Amino acid sequence: MLSFENDYVEGAHEKILSRLAETNLEQLSGYGTDRYCTAAAEKIRNACECPDAEIFFLVGGTQTNAAVIGGMLASYEGVIAAATGHVSVHEAGAIEYTGHKVLTLPEHEGKIHAAELETYLRTFWEDESHEHMVFPGMVYISHPTEYGTLYTSAELEDLSAICRTHQIPLYLDGARLGYGLMSHNTDVTLPLIARCCDVFYIGGTKVGALCGEAVVFPRHNAPKHFLTIIKQHGALLAKGRLLGIQFDTLFTEELYCRISRHAIEMAELLKKGFHERSLNFYLESPTNQQFLILKNSMIERLKRQVDFSLWQKLDEDRTIVRFVTSWATTKEHIAQLMAILDEIRV
Amino acid sequence: MLSFENDYVEGAHEKILSRLAETNLEQLSGYGTDRYCTAAAEKIRNACECPDAEIFFLVGGTQTNAAVIGGMLASYEGVIAAATGHVSVHEAGAIEYTGHKVLTLPEHEGKIHAAELETYLRTFWEDESHEHMVFPGMVYISHPTEYGTLYTSAELEDLSAICRTHQIPLYLDGARLGYGLMSHNTDVTLPLIARCCDVFYIGGTKVGALCGEAVVFPRHNAPKHFLTIIKQHGALLAKGRLLGIQFDTLFTEELYCRISRHAIEMAELLKKGFHERSLNFYLESPTNQQFLILKNSMIERLKRQVDFSLWQKLDEDRTIVRFVTSWATTKEHIAQLMAILDEIRV
Amino acid sequence: MLSFENDYVEGAHEKILSRLAETNLEQLSGYGTDRYCTAAAEKIRNACECPDAEIFFLVGGTQTNAAVIGGMLASYEGVIAAATGHVSVHEAGAIEYTGHKVLTLPEHEGKIHAAELETYLRTFWEDESHEHMVFPGMVYISHPTEYGTLYTSAELEDLSAICRTHQIPLYLDGARLGYGLMSHNTDVTLPLIARCCDVFYIGGTKVGALCGEAVVFPRHNAPKHFLTIIKQHGALLAKGRLLGIQFDTLFTEELYCRISRHAIEMAELLKKGFHERSLNFYLESPTNQQFLILKNSMIERLKRQVDFSLWQKLDEDRTIVRFVTSWATTKEHIAQLMAILDEIRV
Amino acid sequence: MLSFENDYVEGAHEKILSRLAETNLEQLSGYGTDRYCTAAAEKIRNACECPDAEIFFLVGGTQTNAAVIGGMLASYEGVIAAATGHVSVHEAGAIEYTGHKVLTLPEHEGKIHAAELETYLRTFWEDESHEHMVFPGMVYISHPTEYGTLYTSAELEDLSAICRTHQIPLYLDGARLGYGLMSHNTDVTLPLIARCCDVFYIGGTKVGALCGEAVVFPRHNAPKHFLTIIKQHGALLAKGRLLGIQFDTLFTEELYCRISRHAIEMAELLKKGFHERSLNFYLESPTNQQFLILKNSMIERLKRQVDFSLWQKLDEDRTIVRFVTSWATTKEHIAQLMAILDEIRV
Repeated sequence: MLSFENDYVEGAHEKILSRLAETNLEQLSGYGTDRYCTAAAEKIRNACECPDAEIFFLVGGTQTNAAVIGGMLASYEGVIAAATGHVSVHEAGAIEYTGHKVLTLPEHEGKIHAAELETYLRTFWEDESHEHMVFPGMVYISHPTEYGTLYTSAELEDLSAICRTHQIPLYLDGARLGYGLMSHNTDVTLPLIARCCDVFYIGGTKVGALCGEAVVFPRHNAPKHFLTIIKQHGALLAKGRLLGIQFDTLFTEELYCRISRHAIEMAELLKKGFHERSLNFYLESPTNQQFLILKNSMIERLKRQVDFSLWQKLDEDRTIVRFVTSWATTKEHIAQLMAILDEIRV
Repeated sequence: MLSFENDYVEGAHEKILSRLAETNLEQLSGYGTDRYCTAAAEKIRNACECPDAEIFFLVGGTQTNAAVIGGMLASYEGVIAAATGHVSVHEAGAIEYTGHKVLTLPEHEGKIHAAELETYLRTFWEDESHEHMVFPGMVYISHPTEYGTLYTSAELEDLSAICRTHQIPLYLDGARLGYGLMSHNTDVTLPLIARCCDVFYIGGTKVGALCGEAVVFPRHNAPKHFLTIIKQHGALLAKGRLLGIQFDTLFTEELYCRISRHAIEMAELLKKGFHERSLNFYLESPTNQQFLILKNSMIERLKRQVDFSLWQKLDEDRTIVRFVTSWATTKEHIAQLMAILDEIRV
Repeated sequence: MLSFENDYVEGAHEKILSRLAETNLEQLSGYGTDRYCTAAAEKIRNACECPDAEIFFLVGGTQTNAAVIGGMLASYEGVIAAATGHVSVHEAGAIEYTGHKVLTLPEHEGKIHAAELETYLRTFWEDESHEHMVFPGMVYISHPTEYGTLYTSAELEDLSAICRTHQIPLYLDGARLGYGLMSHNTDVTLPLIARCCDVFYIGGTKVGALCGEAVVFPRHNAPKHFLTIIKQHGALLAKGRLLGIQFDTLFTEELYCRISRHAIEMAELLKKGFHERSLNFYLESPTNQQFLILKNSMIERLKRQVDFSLWQKLDEDRTIVRFVTSWATTKEHIAQLMAILDEIRV
Repeated sequence: MLSFENDYVEGAHEKILSRLAETNLEQLSGYGTDRYCTAAAEKIRNACECPDAEIFFLVGGTQTNAAVIGGMLASYEGVIAAATGHVSVHEAGAIEYTGHKVLTLPEHEGKIHAAELETYLRTFWEDESHEHMVFPGMVYISHPTEYGTLYTSAELEDLSAICRTHQIPLYLDGARLGYGLMSHNTDVTLPLIARCCDVFYIGGTKVGALCGEAVVFPRHNAPKHFLTIIKQHGALLAKGRLLGIQFDTLFTEELYCRISRHAIEMAELLKKGFHERSLNFYLESPTNQQFLILKNSMIERLKRQVDFSLWQKLDEDRTIVRFVTSWATTKEHIAQLMAILDEIRV
């Protein structure tokens, strides 16, 4: 069945599979010490324009968030995030499991506002009883957000300035970073992210890899013994080659950008199709996730032929649903979806 | 200096001190196995009309909350609380330190609403991705709340019914329970609490003891090896007698109720005095905590002669402040405060 | 350079790579709900003769141990393991990070003795102060052990009987299980393991997969919401297909057994070669890990041409070293190693 | 019944009770900010000859160990302790509950040897795979130990020098520190402890207080926001006055030393009595805990008239038992015990 459920329904980009096959019988050392991890890290440093960056490869997003947040916070600190942030809602309490509170700010289409962050921090320090409260120790943002929205470069710079004033790190979760960077509607680049953030990760799982996320500490600022922290979180892959080869491939000849751009083009086609059919957008994002408001009766008929996510109940009759494109989406997929829509709506 | 800052500015009721002195050289076994702990537990069982209750004595509120919540939740569960709940805000992340998320509901003068709890629980179970979320594993309420407000018996019964439908325990934090039970404006009794809740604690620290909270599992329903859980939390007092003697004294001849009633009478005097002086209430509670809105200039002058809490900034000129009475407040204290107010406002 | 450093220096068995390529563009649901995970689980159930087994696929060994142990223990319980157990020594404290103590027993070539386990458990319960101690809540063994040694079926049955008497689960870490099952010197089968243990895992990473471990709860006895526990540990792979396809391949036409048997044959050749050259065994194991005592001067020369592990310093002049074969080791590898040894020892 | 079971069977020294009564109705601020905590801290600074020391008052030993160890270690670090250390065995896993491993060294009558510590540390750093292991991040010793034995000043200096070389803190658990300092057989003083250690605590619970331990960071070297760490551990007492008044009393006119010296004198009488009756010592300590080997038949008769601890089964017929004196033991207690012994052995 046709699926727009998410951006990880297919395997990996074919170049990745062929590189895995070519290198398969090379004997390589484990735990990220192999030559492919080294090469991938160097290519990422170049792409970020951060010659001193430290790079670590982990398998998935939740474990990356837990290792970074748990590894960087003092015991009495928590992480600030949007109320809709992935760490706030959809990681089964993985952050709290490391002993740290997620401190939430209001979300605005998935984003936090610099002014609200500043108020939060100032209010905390002014509070007479703040020693009895969780200290804000880090700011977490996702880019694109869980709603597919994007920070502008000005917004990132504002958040960064506030974090620096308060001497807490800014962490950007880039599970879908490629789709953000290649949006038609952004002025944010990888080097800008590297300048604004103290740590971020470049998502592979949702952007063409079988698995894998690349954590970047842009100014040689990884916590001491971060490899051991990764191991302690159960997140150190024995065959680190699997991650090194994938990221080396993604960062060779701009594959990461090229396949992300393709997903954006598919998303633009998708939006165009939805508009032509006068479907009701809940949120039309500049990246690869689109949110519609559909009647439940229509959802029922549509679900027989195509997979997509039920995001949230809106009222008794209508539900917010999500359609996602990816590096693997084809024009034919879009055309099929439109044909199904036309058929249903006749 | 005169203080209405909180209900723990004095030591202990004199009867407690004299009992400690009388029993001082008795040789007693440790960790809550002494005869005074046994006697206190029996008196509490009677007061709760729960012959099968299991009672544990701990030293303070935060450690009690951490031991009860951490000890009863499965690893994948969190505790639901009002956004203003003590566990949500003022325990320095002690609950998250045990690995569990505090899931917040909107607060209404410190209370949660049964309807919102029900919606939260239903929505959780209906959510397609709830397996990626923190499971609601317990409901925490405080009674009186952090704002001195009280649940009615009907409200407690509603919350209890919802919890039983969803098979999660209802936990009542009674740090100031005496002041709630003795309010002029309540239909909630200790036996009713015992019937509605699966676990609750009777606060001693704020109601006449040097320290100590009595945890009650009303239906022989303590988690297995709860004593070891207490020890693991660093909350098992070696000289358990210190807690046993205090609670035995408080639950002899209704001392706990009598001194709580006195605090309520002092609070009524305090409210009367505030009204007579046309002070602006932010929240006039039925218990021992009263919240006023004062001009900052007035606060500055008042602070020279009396201690009270700055609760929250309201705007540039005004602040919400809190005045608290206790078992130890006297008519003279109230009279002094009123004289100071009159002097300042001349 | 030639490597006998460990059993994860190569990628994956070629059948796995070709299956990944063949299925790459199928659109599959995530988190282990795809048809390949379902098929793999069914094949594992058959191989274990456990029609009711629940199977979960995780990425690596440390995270598997943390999720299983952290997910099954009560907060006041610890896990019993050999002093040399992987969880005791080489997981960077991942078990303690979940809040649980590793309680160690003496090791005998990596194994624990049933009699010592029984004494430990009896002594614990007899101890007057056991409520102040960590309760033994699970027994962890590795099979093969970290020294390549194997339990006999009688030994497993004894351990199992003790665990059942004391009502604590027996957990077997099978990171190298294939090499244990295919040893020339064992009477232990997969169904026997399933009968004796309450949970175990079948290692993929070290036995031909790119990554992946299959956790088996043989009697439908997984902890409630174990999927959420996995997620909370950051161990739930988005593209679960990566694990499902690998295990489906390994358990089709006995590939797992066949490649394990090959590794054992290579190990037998290796041992023969070592004996013919009169090398000094520290421990000659029945599986794929062999331990020699070598002079440091020889190690230095050998290291220029071949990789192997320095296990432990024996004295000033000698070190215990480890050579490992795997599914990917060839006769040519062995011959090359022997030629190097002959050249060095001339 | 007469009790030599431990050093916390009585309440508190009478001076403490009278000071509590005298100050009872003073209105004091909470959480250790009152004038008595301030005064007690200053007196402890003087006694330690550490004008810059930071002092915190906690309620009990286990919570103190958890807050200090959990608050000072990085997430990837563990604490080194003797296999018989209180944190290793008798705190119900409170240290592991904070996420940290207790790394054990062999014990020698409860003590660790500097040479073995040095070997452990050197071996750790030399180990090729130490990044996969728990980093040694602190050394924990108890003084007196759990066996009543004492380090010499030379031994403390050696341990201190090793810790400084390896840049890890030395932490001394002084639950019974008074009895160590007042032993007839020691050259260790409080200023020496303050010079050698990076953090230690002066025990009150076992030395005349109702409860309370004073943590000393001798060189203004407390972890940042240690008060919040204490709160997070549920270990911040609301009525801090209870601890301040007790320690202020204990450190006024050397009360702490005087009552400790008395306990030592009682222990000397006890030992003399045991020797005169040719009882079999398992370990004759220089402090207030004495260990005998008694036949089980004798234990049975003795237990009818006197309480003492069963320490450990020695063989089928004999058990190691412990007798403890304290600040509250009287010559009459000793005489009664001896009379009972004489009667039984007739």
